[in-house]
Amino acid sequence: MVQVTVWNEHRSETKHERGRELYPDGIHAELAAVLEAEGHEVRTATLDEPEHGLTDDVLETTDVLLWWGHEAHDEVADDVVEKVKARVLDGMGLLALHSAHYAKIFRELMGTTGSLKWRDTRLTDGERERVWIVEPGHPIADGLDEEYIEIPQAEMYGERFDVPAPDTLITISWFEGGEVFRSGCCYQRGKGRVFYFRPGHETYPVYKQDEVRTVIANAVEWAAPVDGPEPAFADQREPLEAIEEGLPPEHR
Amino acid sequence: MVQVTVWNEHRSETKHERGRELYPDGIHAELAAVLEAEGHEVRTATLDEPEHGLTDDVLETTDVLLWWGHEAHDEVADDVVEKVKARVLDGMGLLALHSAHYAKIFRELMGTTGSLKWRDTRLTDGERERVWIVEPGHPIADGLDEEYIEIPQAEMYGERFDVPAPDTLITISWFEGGEVFRSGCCYQRGKGRVFYFRPGHETYPVYKQDEVRTVIANAVEWAAPVDGPEPAFADQREPLEAIEEGLPPEHR
Amino acid sequence: MVQVTVWNEHRSETKHERGRELYPDGIHAELAAVLEAEGHEVRTATLDEPEHGLTDDVLETTDVLLWWGHEAHDEVADDVVEKVKARVLDGMGLLALHSAHYAKIFRELMGTTGSLKWRDTRLTDGERERVWIVEPGHPIADGLDEEYIEIPQAEMYGERFDVPAPDTLITISWFEGGEVFRSGCCYQRGKGRVFYFRPGHETYPVYKQDEVRTVIANAVEWAAPVDGPEPAFADQREPLEAIEEGLPPEHR
Amino acid sequence: MVQVTVWNEHRSETKHERGRELYPDGIHAELAAVLEAEGHEVRTATLDEPEHGLTDDVLETTDVLLWWGHEAHDEVADDVVEKVKARVLDGMGLLALHSAHYAKIFRELMGTTGSLKWRDTRLTDGERERVWIVEPGHPIADGLDEEYIEIPQAEMYGERFDVPAPDTLITISWFEGGEVFRSGCCYQRGKGRVFYFRPGHETYPVYKQDEVRTVIANAVEWAAPVDGPEPAFADQREPLEAIEEGLPPEHR
Repeated sequence: MVQVTVWNEHRSETKHERGRELYPDGIHAELAAVLEAEGHEVRTATLDEPEHGLTDDVLETTDVLLWWGHEAHDEVADDVVEKVKARVLDGMGLLALHSAHYAKIFRELMGTTGSLKWRDTRLTDGERERVWIVEPGHPIADGLDEEYIEIPQAEMYGERFDVPAPDTLITISWFEGGEVFRSGCCYQRGKGRVFYFRPGHETYPVYKQDEVRTVIANAVEWAAPVDGPEPAFADQREPLEAIEEGLPPEHR
Repeated sequence: MVQVTVWNEHRSETKHERGRELYPDGIHAELAAVLEAEGHEVRTATLDEPEHGLTDDVLETTDVLLWWGHEAHDEVADDVVEKVKARVLDGMGLLALHSAHYAKIFRELMGTTGSLKWRDTRLTDGERERVWIVEPGHPIADGLDEEYIEIPQAEMYGERFDVPAPDTLITISWFEGGEVFRSGCCYQRGKGRVFYFRPGHETYPVYKQDEVRTVIANAVEWAAPVDGPEPAFADQREPLEAIEEGLPPEHR
Repeated sequence: MVQVTVWNEHRSETKHERGRELYPDGIHAELAAVLEAEGHEVRTATLDEPEHGLTDDVLETTDVLLWWGHEAHDEVADDVVEKVKARVLDGMGLLALHSAHYAKIFRELMGTTGSLKWRDTRLTDGERERVWIVEPGHPIADGLDEEYIEIPQAEMYGERFDVPAPDTLITISWFEGGEVFRSGCCYQRGKGRVFYFRPGHETYPVYKQDEVRTVIANAVEWAAPVDGPEPAFADQREPLEAIEEGLPPEHR
Repeated sequence: MVQVTVWNEHRSETKHERGRELYPDGIHAELAAVLEAEGHEVRTATLDEPEHGLTDDVLETTDVLLWWGHEAHDEVADDVVEKVKARVLDGMGLLALHSAHYAKIFRELMGTTGSLKWRDTRLTDGERERVWIVEPGHPIADGLDEEYIEIPQAEMYGERFDVPAPDTLITISWFEGGEVFRSGCCYQRGKGRVFYFRPGHETYPVYKQDEVRTVIANAVEWAAPVDGPEPAFADQREPLEAIEEGLPPEHR
């Protein structure tokens, strides 16, 4: 059982009729239901709540945070971003979903811009994405029957994706329009694990697909904190081993 | 021939008699001389110059930037840090030396705190460090005869070093007092290459050692920019391949 | 619950009085007891059994295989090695312990020699090893309280360790005699996970130490197979997408 | 100037009229001409020569070896494979081209099967491949103007590609028929560098394309040996640091 908080900007899916039909209570509600069904303890938080719903209390009791944001990244307060970052470095897992490639928290943890190519879905109403599992032995692929996940309608994201090379690359997406994308990327940052997972546009029923839900549920377990040793970042005045005497102190 | 800029805080080595004796014109002058002797075009820049000496002109004509800072990281202006970061992501190489593990620019590019253990040299006058070359086939190890570099007196830095696992780990340091440290770490960030290299305290003649100079000179060549394709981060309105018609646009 | 098989050469610890005192029933019995206490289903197998105890039946029902070998690597039959390798690529976990750096199965999976430096313990009766945890957020570090594991008497293994850079480096060992070693190394090979863990000489009570047992127990869970998709390595006569007609077949 | 040997099975391109038209003197001659034009010293070697043309003399004076094989991998003598492998571990670069994913030398260095999906070109006469450069700042991408290389007719190779995750992933291929492939993969093995590069079927003019030639020429320079320290894999009887006396020797 993992303590999960699903954070959602909760703007994009309310603006389009299709988004409202698909996710009437918001994408956060959809994802929360998926993870509750897995037996996790799940809360939600959204941009417009005080402190974006990410108070110290919430963060301290969150094992894994899911992040969905799209058009209001700039409205996320910097001090909240810093708190979330500190929690990740201290061991909290983070799932950055879809357009969260451009969220402040993701960019800060990556050290890069998170930029990429995309195709405006108002022109094409999306296109076919085929998410190939390139590491079928990884825990995040557990329970998937097929070697790829086909998403009938998707917003394209294409390379170059400006992120550090992932510690482990789990999926690569093929797009009908001719692009490819590293769509499932694992990172260790501090004591925390980060998983970027591309699928999930607000106007397509991507989060209704079983395989997509399986990947997200697996990633939550994979990203859950570990009770490892607490690093001391401090002056080690007493060496563990005897040090030979060096030059006399008056030289210092 | 690489266009190099050596940046130095130029505070630490002026405060101690030993530092003034070792590096009378500053650590930047010492490193600049090493790299000029290699045939590179070298400039220097320091904290107290306007814009810390890192004007747009300087940055745009720098292939590889060396960064030495210790006690005044906070005095580096954020807008200069952002400019340097943008240049690295655009291809400029960066060598973060010694206490630059805690420089704003390094922490921003890593996405972590850069924290570590250390031992105050006023108590022991340093200790022996043995820098083991663990990837002897890497270009940064070119020309080294021995499998380790012995540094008679060094300030200890010990693990846990809070950085992302390096893309390539070149050296691991052994310390007399009982610690180890990932002391030579390669990273790709955007189009730029970053090398963190630990040796180099201001009160010890570390930068006088031939092997240390060899590593730094090699790293400059390794980090020099490459003329690869320029990523377009933009809406790809015209797909490269035909996209089947999807749902009617009124659904959007 | 994981199905574990502990394989042991069972030669080295029977030759020395100290080894017989420490591990009267063999190192395999010691490790089996540790893992049974964790609730796993554990079998053992040794070199002198028919097929080295690694029949098809045993391999097919093994989730994670522990391998301890030292002086008789060459006596392991090549066809058994090939079967074990095939099982790892198909998802079985492998823990290569101590001198298994030189086991045929480990070398075959790495593609390198597995060579290293060592120090004959008959000259010094071992030396102090301090195993530093450099990734405290990794599942293999779960439950460790301290940042390092101190092993009072150990056979030294030193860099250069001729292995591919690990996918994840968990521990680095410091040795009293002046060397360092990447002592805890994670690899994905095919669908299987491999963990090399250095501690464990036959004449020292290393496998009696709680922290060493914790690491091994964690690694068993980490290396357990995952039920991911089965890759088809086959001719894809029916493309997933329509392919435009190319040149006429008579050109072929 | 790099000393290059281009090895070719020299079977496949002689069997088809189109292959004979494209590469009348063999693929090795085509690639040799490309690399000679870059100023390198180039020799060729083929399967049917004594020792496959890879005598000790040739191997000892080769900096970088290119390997093209397709249908006769099994005819390559094991002792030659072992010699080539030893040379790679000792620093010689290796470029494994196209169907060399299944060459003995590649599989031995990877420790995996090198298996993948493919599509028989007799059915479709190939399909479009778009090789996306995902690390535009890497030396292997130097001089490429576009973010992808379009290959009008190619034999498809698709994921899952059974190799260890590359140290650096340079390109990902998109295929018209719906697959993706990690088509440009860098590995360090021992002191040697290995680059797998997918494009290059014998019946298509892939090696006539400027961008493909650029990648191969860059990879030769990237894979050239480095004069790093020679690892001693030996008993270190004399420790570098004093070791405290341990238990009395009669216990051993």
